[in-house]
Amino acid sequence: MRAEIISVGTELLLGQIVDTNAAYLSKRLPEYGVDLLYRATVGDNESRLAEAVSAAMSRADLVFTIGGLGPTQDDLTKETVAAVAADPMRLDKETADRLRAFFAAREIEMPETNLKQAMVPTRGTALDNPLGTAPGAVFETESGKAIICLPGPPREFVPMVDERVVPYLSKRLGQNSEIITSRELRLAGIGESTVEDKVKELLCGNNPTVAPLAHTGEVHLRITAKASSLEEARQMIDVVDAKLVSILEDRVFGRDDQTLESVVVESLLQRNLTLAVAESCTGGLITSRITDIPGSSGALLFGVAAYSNKAKKELLGVPGKILEESGAVSEQCARAMAENVRALAGSDYGLSVTGIAGPGGGSPEKPVGLVYIGLASGSGTYVRKHNLSGNRADVKYRSSQNALDMLRTFILFGKIP
Amino acid sequence: MRAEIISVGTELLLGQIVDTNAAYLSKRLPEYGVDLLYRATVGDNESRLAEAVSAAMSRADLVFTIGGLGPTQDDLTKETVAAVAADPMRLDKETADRLRAFFAAREIEMPETNLKQAMVPTRGTALDNPLGTAPGAVFETESGKAIICLPGPPREFVPMVDERVVPYLSKRLGQNSEIITSRELRLAGIGESTVEDKVKELLCGNNPTVAPLAHTGEVHLRITAKASSLEEARQMIDVVDAKLVSILEDRVFGRDDQTLESVVVESLLQRNLTLAVAESCTGGLITSRITDIPGSSGALLFGVAAYSNKAKKELLGVPGKILEESGAVSEQCARAMAENVRALAGSDYGLSVTGIAGPGGGSPEKPVGLVYIGLASGSGTYVRKHNLSGNRADVKYRSSQNALDMLRTFILFGKIP
Repeated sequence: MRAEIISVGTELLLGQIVDTNAAYLSKRLPEYGVDLLYRATVGDNESRLAEAVSAAMSRADLVFTIGGLGPTQDDLTKETVAAVAADPMRLDKETADRLRAFFAAREIEMPETNLKQAMVPTRGTALDNPLGTAPGAVFETESGKAIICLPGPPREFVPMVDERVVPYLSKRLGQNSEIITSRELRLAGIGESTVEDKVKELLCGNNPTVAPLAHTGEVHLRITAKASSLEEARQMIDVVDAKLVSILEDRVFGRDDQTLESVVVESLLQRNLTLAVAESCTGGLITSRITDIPGSSGALLFGVAAYSNKAKKELLGVPGKILEESGAVSEQCARAMAENVRALAGSDYGLSVTGIAGPGGGSPEKPVGLVYIGLASGSGTYVRKHNLSGNRADVKYRSSQNALDMLRTFILFGKIP
Repeated sequence: MRAEIISVGTELLLGQIVDTNAAYLSKRLPEYGVDLLYRATVGDNESRLAEAVSAAMSRADLVFTIGGLGPTQDDLTKETVAAVAADPMRLDKETADRLRAFFAAREIEMPETNLKQAMVPTRGTALDNPLGTAPGAVFETESGKAIICLPGPPREFVPMVDERVVPYLSKRLGQNSEIITSRELRLAGIGESTVEDKVKELLCGNNPTVAPLAHTGEVHLRITAKASSLEEARQMIDVVDAKLVSILEDRVFGRDDQTLESVVVESLLQRNLTLAVAESCTGGLITSRITDIPGSSGALLFGVAAYSNKAKKELLGVPGKILEESGAVSEQCARAMAENVRALAGSDYGLSVTGIAGPGGGSPEKPVGLVYIGLASGSGTYVRKHNLSGNRADVKYRSSQNALDMLRTFILFGKIP
């Protein structure tokens, strides 16, 4: 089964958006044995889009279009594809009702132009969009080729692929092709070159392959296997996964979609433990990351973003003496913040961060990137000093990574990294 | 001058890499009056690459290829392009010497296969690569079209574009070409279709064009003008910008890189006003967004992520009666949170959010997405109710957008949206 992807949008051709959608779909297709041969990007231009769709249909069995399904005049993907596939559209009453209900629930009057989104293929089918007003569509040609039209906003696109395209593909393809699948091991508190040195031999494997990928404050190892079934590929990956963990040990915090915050929340909930957070330079980022996880309210009692010295003193009871003698960015202040927020909340753990995120506020003794992280627990308080690199956003993010990793390592391994 | 871009690499088709190079080049080309009509991605496959190059050359005057210039067998871009352009290659002694020197400086013996990188076009020219061993190349056809081959690693690609391609284009194009430039107007608290209804006539313009783009909780209007100079294009944009603002008024919060948080922080600092934030369902996100802005410590006194009822009562002094009778997600609770955090901090404004981010916690009376936002000020307290759509992350983000926009509108226009 051969596929092509056509991304539609002048904003892509002008470089105002990086095409993460096409990359996401590209990653998913090999899992179903679909070979992607070609990807194209065209602007919001009817004749060039029609040309691209025709060319793709002449080579491939399946063509995906991304974008141009909105309610505006610019959005002409469905109309163009319907013409090329000779699969005309009709107004779908059910979709139209759903659109009206969507607007009614938000107490907004639906502009009549939105009805265009309720037009669906006659031979093919509509693909319901759980997160937006633009449904997708599968157009089918007389010779049995299919063109699948998906919406452009990534927050709609990704669930459409996972929940609509994948079942469609599974049904259409049956069982007999070779599949490629991957798993990502995620590591924190260790640099990419250290990882590479430690697992050098495993990086030379052919099937599965292992490839390191550096992200801010994390390293991912992507294990990819080819096999005749998903089960076989996963078993091959399991073997390499176990070898990597035996070398990298507690630096592996999770796999695939797991994040430091999801692992921390899960670890706390499983043990019925509670947390309170006192943040200075991270300004609420740690608390926000934790509360991204459903169910986190069962573990997080509260967070304080104590940005000013006044807040550190009055809300968190950091002694004025510490702020005057050692300063707000100090081992002593991090310790007091962690211990006091734990006492205030009556939680099992108190986590604190104080540092200099920049670009201003640094000095020769206390440069931008100097960060202290404190962890108060029933068995004592620990403080770690870090010198972090990057701009303001990097320092904030790396600080939150180090804080979450310190808590994770302490809960799961009883030690401080 | 019409151009196309072909990105080469199986890793792109497998979705292992997001194509930031093509986006970067796409952004630079319009500045030199080059129209990009089409972008394609092919794997490391000679015949498909040759087909893509032929197709692109039949439509465009300039074709860029990205990737496939390395020393390995996989890397076949130059060989393929040379054949299609009928511009055969020759070994360039100078480039070969430079390659040998590059390896000598690193005390590595140069593999003989690397000499392949010293092959340059006969009719066209080589493009020296300051940061890598793979030089670029410009192949020229007999009819005067050019194919520019650039390396794939972004740290080599970007300087190659800036330091090699831009001078080449300036020289080739001379002065009499048109330039294209854009500006984005950013709007909050208004939906895409409402914006479109209001400015319908301006969306039909030809030069400048106006195109709406929906983002989570924001709408952007991209104004793009073509002219013979950057100054002229900017003046044309100014005219449309002023018309849009006269229609959309206080819904326009900024332009280009401005964000709601940067506008809020700037507005507070300019007026010497202070803020404290009490967050429930946004869990620290508003505070974190505000503290992303350098200098925000001059305006934000502190934030409390009062996730539990205990924290709402004990830290923020929300009366137990409100929590029992109206619940934590209520107009009354939002009001008390905003007023009490303002009093606690002694700040000019108190901003509060309480709601149900989901996926759990909803009920028929209080569904997921129900959010109350409170703003306490010297002249009174205001609460707005919202019904927001999307998943947990969306509800958090949209809540933070609405809260920041409510504060912005109150500071700048003295009213509540």
